[in-house]
Amino acid sequence: MTTGMKRTTEKNLMVFSGRAHPELAEAVAADLGTQLVPTELRDFANTEMYVRFEESVRGCDAFVIQSHTAPINKWIMEHLIMVDALKRASAKRITVVTPFYGYARQDKKSRGREPISARLMADMFKTAGADRLMAVDLHTDQIQGFFDGPVDHLQAMPILTDYVSRKYGHEDLTVVSPDAGRIKVAEAWSKRLDGAPLAFIHKTRDVTQSNQSVANRVIGHVEGRTCILVDDMIDSGGTIVHAADALMAEGASSVVIAATHAIFSDPAATRLRDSVAREVIVTDTLPITADKGFEKLTPLSIAPLLGKAIREVFEDGSVTSMFTP
Amino acid sequence: MTTGMKRTTEKNLMVFSGRAHPELAEAVAADLGTQLVPTELRDFANTEMYVRFEESVRGCDAFVIQSHTAPINKWIMEHLIMVDALKRASAKRITVVTPFYGYARQDKKSRGREPISARLMADMFKTAGADRLMAVDLHTDQIQGFFDGPVDHLQAMPILTDYVSRKYGHEDLTVVSPDAGRIKVAEAWSKRLDGAPLAFIHKTRDVTQSNQSVANRVIGHVEGRTCILVDDMIDSGGTIVHAADALMAEGASSVVIAATHAIFSDPAATRLRDSVAREVIVTDTLPITADKGFEKLTPLSIAPLLGKAIREVFEDGSVTSMFTP
Amino acid sequence: MTTGMKRTTEKNLMVFSGRAHPELAEAVAADLGTQLVPTELRDFANTEMYVRFEESVRGCDAFVIQSHTAPINKWIMEHLIMVDALKRASAKRITVVTPFYGYARQDKKSRGREPISARLMADMFKTAGADRLMAVDLHTDQIQGFFDGPVDHLQAMPILTDYVSRKYGHEDLTVVSPDAGRIKVAEAWSKRLDGAPLAFIHKTRDVTQSNQSVANRVIGHVEGRTCILVDDMIDSGGTIVHAADALMAEGASSVVIAATHAIFSDPAATRLRDSVAREVIVTDTLPITADKGFEKLTPLSIAPLLGKAIREVFEDGSVTSMFTP
Amino acid sequence: MTTGMKRTTEKNLMVFSGRAHPELAEAVAADLGTQLVPTELRDFANTEMYVRFEESVRGCDAFVIQSHTAPINKWIMEHLIMVDALKRASAKRITVVTPFYGYARQDKKSRGREPISARLMADMFKTAGADRLMAVDLHTDQIQGFFDGPVDHLQAMPILTDYVSRKYGHEDLTVVSPDAGRIKVAEAWSKRLDGAPLAFIHKTRDVTQSNQSVANRVIGHVEGRTCILVDDMIDSGGTIVHAADALMAEGASSVVIAATHAIFSDPAATRLRDSVAREVIVTDTLPITADKGFEKLTPLSIAPLLGKAIREVFEDGSVTSMFTP
Amino acid sequence: MTTGMKRTTEKNLMVFSGRAHPELAEAVAADLGTQLVPTELRDFANTEMYVRFEESVRGCDAFVIQSHTAPINKWIMEHLIMVDALKRASAKRITVVTPFYGYARQDKKSRGREPISARLMADMFKTAGADRLMAVDLHTDQIQGFFDGPVDHLQAMPILTDYVSRKYGHEDLTVVSPDAGRIKVAEAWSKRLDGAPLAFIHKTRDVTQSNQSVANRVIGHVEGRTCILVDDMIDSGGTIVHAADALMAEGASSVVIAATHAIFSDPAATRLRDSVAREVIVTDTLPITADKGFEKLTPLSIAPLLGKAIREVFEDGSVTSMFTP
Amino acid sequence: MTTGMKRTTEKNLMVFSGRAHPELAEAVAADLGTQLVPTELRDFANTEMYVRFEESVRGCDAFVIQSHTAPINKWIMEHLIMVDALKRASAKRITVVTPFYGYARQDKKSRGREPISARLMADMFKTAGADRLMAVDLHTDQIQGFFDGPVDHLQAMPILTDYVSRKYGHEDLTVVSPDAGRIKVAEAWSKRLDGAPLAFIHKTRDVTQSNQSVANRVIGHVEGRTCILVDDMIDSGGTIVHAADALMAEGASSVVIAATHAIFSDPAATRLRDSVAREVIVTDTLPITADKGFEKLTPLSIAPLLGKAIREVFEDGSVTSMFTP
Repeated sequence: MTTGMKRTTEKNLMVFSGRAHPELAEAVAADLGTQLVPTELRDFANTEMYVRFEESVRGCDAFVIQSHTAPINKWIMEHLIMVDALKRASAKRITVVTPFYGYARQDKKSRGREPISARLMADMFKTAGADRLMAVDLHTDQIQGFFDGPVDHLQAMPILTDYVSRKYGHEDLTVVSPDAGRIKVAEAWSKRLDGAPLAFIHKTRDVTQSNQSVANRVIGHVEGRTCILVDDMIDSGGTIVHAADALMAEGASSVVIAATHAIFSDPAATRLRDSVAREVIVTDTLPITADKGFEKLTPLSIAPLLGKAIREVFEDGSVTSMFTP
Repeated sequence: MTTGMKRTTEKNLMVFSGRAHPELAEAVAADLGTQLVPTELRDFANTEMYVRFEESVRGCDAFVIQSHTAPINKWIMEHLIMVDALKRASAKRITVVTPFYGYARQDKKSRGREPISARLMADMFKTAGADRLMAVDLHTDQIQGFFDGPVDHLQAMPILTDYVSRKYGHEDLTVVSPDAGRIKVAEAWSKRLDGAPLAFIHKTRDVTQSNQSVANRVIGHVEGRTCILVDDMIDSGGTIVHAADALMAEGASSVVIAATHAIFSDPAATRLRDSVAREVIVTDTLPITADKGFEKLTPLSIAPLLGKAIREVFEDGSVTSMFTP
Repeated sequence: MTTGMKRTTEKNLMVFSGRAHPELAEAVAADLGTQLVPTELRDFANTEMYVRFEESVRGCDAFVIQSHTAPINKWIMEHLIMVDALKRASAKRITVVTPFYGYARQDKKSRGREPISARLMADMFKTAGADRLMAVDLHTDQIQGFFDGPVDHLQAMPILTDYVSRKYGHEDLTVVSPDAGRIKVAEAWSKRLDGAPLAFIHKTRDVTQSNQSVANRVIGHVEGRTCILVDDMIDSGGTIVHAADALMAEGASSVVIAATHAIFSDPAATRLRDSVAREVIVTDTLPITADKGFEKLTPLSIAPLLGKAIREVFEDGSVTSMFTP
Repeated sequence: MTTGMKRTTEKNLMVFSGRAHPELAEAVAADLGTQLVPTELRDFANTEMYVRFEESVRGCDAFVIQSHTAPINKWIMEHLIMVDALKRASAKRITVVTPFYGYARQDKKSRGREPISARLMADMFKTAGADRLMAVDLHTDQIQGFFDGPVDHLQAMPILTDYVSRKYGHEDLTVVSPDAGRIKVAEAWSKRLDGAPLAFIHKTRDVTQSNQSVANRVIGHVEGRTCILVDDMIDSGGTIVHAADALMAEGASSVVIAATHAIFSDPAATRLRDSVAREVIVTDTLPITADKGFEKLTPLSIAPLLGKAIREVFEDGSVTSMFTP
Repeated sequence: MTTGMKRTTEKNLMVFSGRAHPELAEAVAADLGTQLVPTELRDFANTEMYVRFEESVRGCDAFVIQSHTAPINKWIMEHLIMVDALKRASAKRITVVTPFYGYARQDKKSRGREPISARLMADMFKTAGADRLMAVDLHTDQIQGFFDGPVDHLQAMPILTDYVSRKYGHEDLTVVSPDAGRIKVAEAWSKRLDGAPLAFIHKTRDVTQSNQSVANRVIGHVEGRTCILVDDMIDSGGTIVHAADALMAEGASSVVIAATHAIFSDPAATRLRDSVAREVIVTDTLPITADKGFEKLTPLSIAPLLGKAIREVFEDGSVTSMFTP
Repeated sequence: MTTGMKRTTEKNLMVFSGRAHPELAEAVAADLGTQLVPTELRDFANTEMYVRFEESVRGCDAFVIQSHTAPINKWIMEHLIMVDALKRASAKRITVVTPFYGYARQDKKSRGREPISARLMADMFKTAGADRLMAVDLHTDQIQGFFDGPVDHLQAMPILTDYVSRKYGHEDLTVVSPDAGRIKVAEAWSKRLDGAPLAFIHKTRDVTQSNQSVANRVIGHVEGRTCILVDDMIDSGGTIVHAADALMAEGASSVVIAATHAIFSDPAATRLRDSVAREVIVTDTLPITADKGFEKLTPLSIAPLLGKAIREVFEDGSVTSMFTP
């Protein structure tokens, strides 16, 4: 005698997006040959938010995309609430996709009595119901270890270096890190740009000047060279623009700025537009609204990378192999 | 031979406040005879927030006050980050104090694929490091059960009923609930107002009218009586103002509105000012900014209640006995 | 080279029942076209219980049905032990099915130093190994938020209202709530009964009488009408029978009682049999033993509803759509 | 400037009891020089239970005593609900005291698809809020490892062996285990009784007889000796009475039965009374009601042991040292 | 319109091995018709270890085999790190396979202030990411209850008893336990060897001798019989060799030693080789290196048992049925 | 009437040490004016370990010191087992003290399918029962975020820079990082050495040479300067000795090596002794055995730093203030 009823198991990929950067999520869905799940998302009068999925999500393999752009606390909370709703609606597996992971820079206590907000975010997504995390160019690799579960850490660097290589590969390149803490990234760039030499900017307090004044000393040789000034993100742009100035002052022939995440807090757009930089290359992990655009800005699309990674995860392929030749 | 070193244990109460409603937190600290712990709280350019306590908090019994007012997601996130920082700075016990608990109304799934955000908030505070929760007049009592730990649930009703009793006790009072779901609260008011009769507003779809139209039917006798229209919160004010209109239409002699939480989302202030209400009585669990004030509004202070409850908790007294004569 | 062995995944629904109300579980299994998994269930001499499944349950999608009837602590414990045994026997997913969810009424602290037993039950099922919860007409919707995982909350109301509508729809109906806290349910009934008017019973302490005496005041118009007195459950029946009396005293033409859960603690059966009620309509979420039956009692079967919901869950369909036309 | 308020910390021991065996809890409290905390404990009509402490328990060091006697599921559930109520009422530390720990015998899967109920109990007490566990003579020592936290495992054996030693020490004693699995206990007895020789009963299926028949073979020399037949518990008494018969059949001069836990399920009392045993020695970890008493039964009080252990725990003394000379 | 993409789900069994006993893992993989997943495993200069899987493991059903042999802490840590790497690489389900489970003997506190390392191991594997545990002949069955999840407890006894039955079944057998605590195992042997009689060794402190001296008293009849001396493991071999001596001294005709786990710490091999034992029968749950072999040692292969159990688990068959005729 | 018994609470600091580096733990205890708690620690024949504390630890504030030196897996496991034993013996609070935190370098996935062992260690200590963590110079600050609880992160740098400043402060110093990833540390050194200039070594694959060959390019000016080559740890010493060679080749006048953690795996001692370095300065966070010493090695004591931090933690002082002037 048999008790029980059998069925062949099917899995069903569904892609969700919050309101922070829907264009990117739509591009990802299109890349996957599907559409975003219709979702009701709105604010109540007192700024509380409401979420409801308009189709059954029972048993699905959910990928929930939200770029943590300003107002960042609102969009993170919306992201969390979406995960809670998916959990309670019986999604089978929930992957949180953060093209830009908010609070990544608060990844340690620099001084006593600070939070470690990057860990708190990871824990809150876990609490809400996230099984997995997918992110692009985390501020530090160690953030992978903040989440208790699998993390797919995607690299935008190949997209950026391919572009730079095609456009500037014939010039004499030096890869420059805008500060001491990011030279590791510059080293990775150097390796992909045929071993281009390295330099970095060392910020020192100028003792001859008032309290706040800081001098940017260039460590390494940059004279007469095309400097590729690289970072993971550009926030208000002050550091990188001053770095560009320092490079030109040291005799660089030109400066090209490249970064994955275009946060572009005010007055980044103005600063970059008016800077000595020849070109500013970024990806669209964060929305670049019209008022943030300027002529020498080149945004590259991150959607194909996210689409390919989601497909690999869904089909139990390898994300690792995407980044190894 | 003795190994080890002994010390008598001391406990140390410390009160903290986020930036949502510092006036209330200051009043609570003053009531306790202390001051708020100096805390650095600010926004970065990209709207991420930074928190740091400027004194050692090691081993303290921390009470962290934040009213969840608009922009609510920001202030909840600040609240969470403060708790994380306290946990990592070795606070001994952390009590989250929410004079108004955000997302309290999303306490169940009314339809499929909704979140239960009120539970998510409770879980996130637990994850961040909260040991206990203190709140005033939760939207439903069941939210106590959402937090995995002790909850001190304070009642503002005695403050409000004392005021009403003193001012209107000599008139013929009827306690009115603005909708069927809140009659339980009205019953509690009735008990404290010498058994004043009850009524409630039953909303019915008006079948003779277009889709959105709703008729407010009064259930109970209100003719010639002073109606005390009670609720736990006033958000944009539409429901309660229409209820007041319905009562006057049924022949009430006057309507007094009373509620604990003055959310006052636009256009609540205008609506209430222009309404038939004789007086609007609230507490200051939420900040009432100048633009939200109007002549017939009476805000009562909640600080003494919070101060007394915190003292009882700190000294292992009884919070329960505060609400039982 | 390939390492690893592949197989197509199959899922296998299995239905389990404790000893509290096997007739219902059998009806559910029959509705699904299967049988209950043979299970050894017995009491040791000292009242400890023993559970063992007589077939392999490895990898199955388990639905474990137990109605929390008296002796309720025994049947809840059996339910918990069954879940533990399923977890340890490698069931893939475990859904706890509680047609009636025990301790649902202790869902908040009404006074200090009370438990919140409804939350404790949810946590204990989680601890034992439950992944999901399915329940019928929870005492308050907020109990959904007590369980950390998906909850399928089924509504018996359509079954009851369809019956009432068919049988009494041509009379002048008024929907009545037996106390202020349940009017929300009465409102839902009213909506399904073509907007029938509402009334409720307001209990007030009768000041002319001794301490324990309570007067039932009817709020709303009931004279000459067929009153449908509705509640989620009937326990010992005192409240609802007194409510029926009050309605007749106010001139109601007749009273029909309807409720989902027939707890029927002594002396409910006698009281209801001897009451003024014209008919008492319930479902069989709880066993109605011969001694609890009486002539004017109409029990409706809940098995088809549970069967349909289980099938939707197993096949990743939508339970929500079962309750939306 | 100082923020914060300081107080010297005081700790407060409070003893609680469920309804299973209040006499024991009262004796423990008396031994400690205090009284049980007044507690409202009652059954609702449908057998759900209600708990409420009648004094503030905030910040206390709680010891909650409940013997898991029949009806065992009810008393365990009451125990769990008491712990939940203490947690939510802000008790500082909660120690669950189980003079007899229920379901201790289901401590492993003997066959597939069984529960491990003893672990489930430990997890449920943890979930309800227990910080610590105190128990007397657990069925197997490994149950200590089922609870995720400190366990104080008290031994009643010294109480029993002291009595036996005083009364029978001058006779030729043999310590006998009623089955192969408990010889370890018999060895411990032997050590405390000046190395008295050991024997045990080996149950074998009698192949010459029908299916259910089992022969008790005595392994070891018992002829002419006073046999102390020891076990941790006596449930329905069948095993131990047959063992006594077997010993007499092998020529033992007399048999004295000793066990910590007098479960005495029917027909234990009758069986023991009518048995060949000279005396039956137990402790009062479980209530011995009048109908369970008989002339040759000697119950020894466990209260002083529990009282001493609780005092040590409260005062950060050593429980271990209570059992090492 | 359909959102989402569907695929039929496939499951993929993968077998992994640490460096403790690769021969066994290879034999298991071969039995399953597959190969071990190629894995980089090495020590850094400071004895930290490195693990990396050389194929994608995303979505696989992972079985990770490691025998906890000396240096046991190293191999347990390697086992844990492999599980962590599998979790982070998105393995779907992780079963930890411990042919010999380390620290199994520290399964209780024999004295105060000891650890319960066997529980700690279970918790650490859970923390690292293990979903399930498979083990052979755990030292005590209760260890099943230490792991919070399904445990497949395999028995090597049938392999050993089949061998003994074939080779010695025609002689007069007595099954002997080397100490009081293991007689339960001897009873199980007895049942499989046609009810062969039982005996055990009772260790007593010899009061006529110095402090450390212990006398082995044989309880039961062994004269003229072939004694099968059984245990779950042989560590340094002292106990069992002395037991064999005691049996011969009591007139046993010969002694055959049988045990599942051949730990063989020094000087076990020498002791056993030089002992009175006629044959020593073990399995290869632990590696038996050349220097540990000796002529009268018979190792039986455990690989087919593990292979069969893994196949049953993967295919949702029954492991239980493997041990019931 | 009063129920309950009151006592003033006392706290009791106790310091524990494993067997990895007892000299350091003894020095810490001495600094605190106490002694290590006598503890039985030993290996069984099969390399399992045994732990037992020889004094009551009930209620104590435990600090458990173990340096994670080779054989590192053994000492980490001993550390974990000690924590488990303390938890089960009712220690009130357990702080794990790791002068050197093992597996700190595996703090991220550099490639797919690697573990994040540094997070695994943090989780395992939490699982075993650790409440807090204290460590010296973690390899990356982010490891603070791996532990779910307070982390006291002590800095040895002031001890090292004070020594360097005193001895070499009058020379022309350049601070050099041996690789790109550690420049942040060099910057911190520079700040404490009056803004000494920075340089770093950039490793590039030498394309003219065979596969393994790597060229060390110096970035920054070092000619004629005293180079302070700094790192957090020296393992086998290859990198730092090659860096020293590269600096001398670039014209440095001399090279002084400074690092917190002297791992000194073979052949570090020989390499450093034979290197161009003028002096090698380390602390004793790890044991420096006689065979690892050499003439130009200067070990500085870390015990006073640990002692002071433990005292601050015990007395609820501020550890932060120890590192801010």
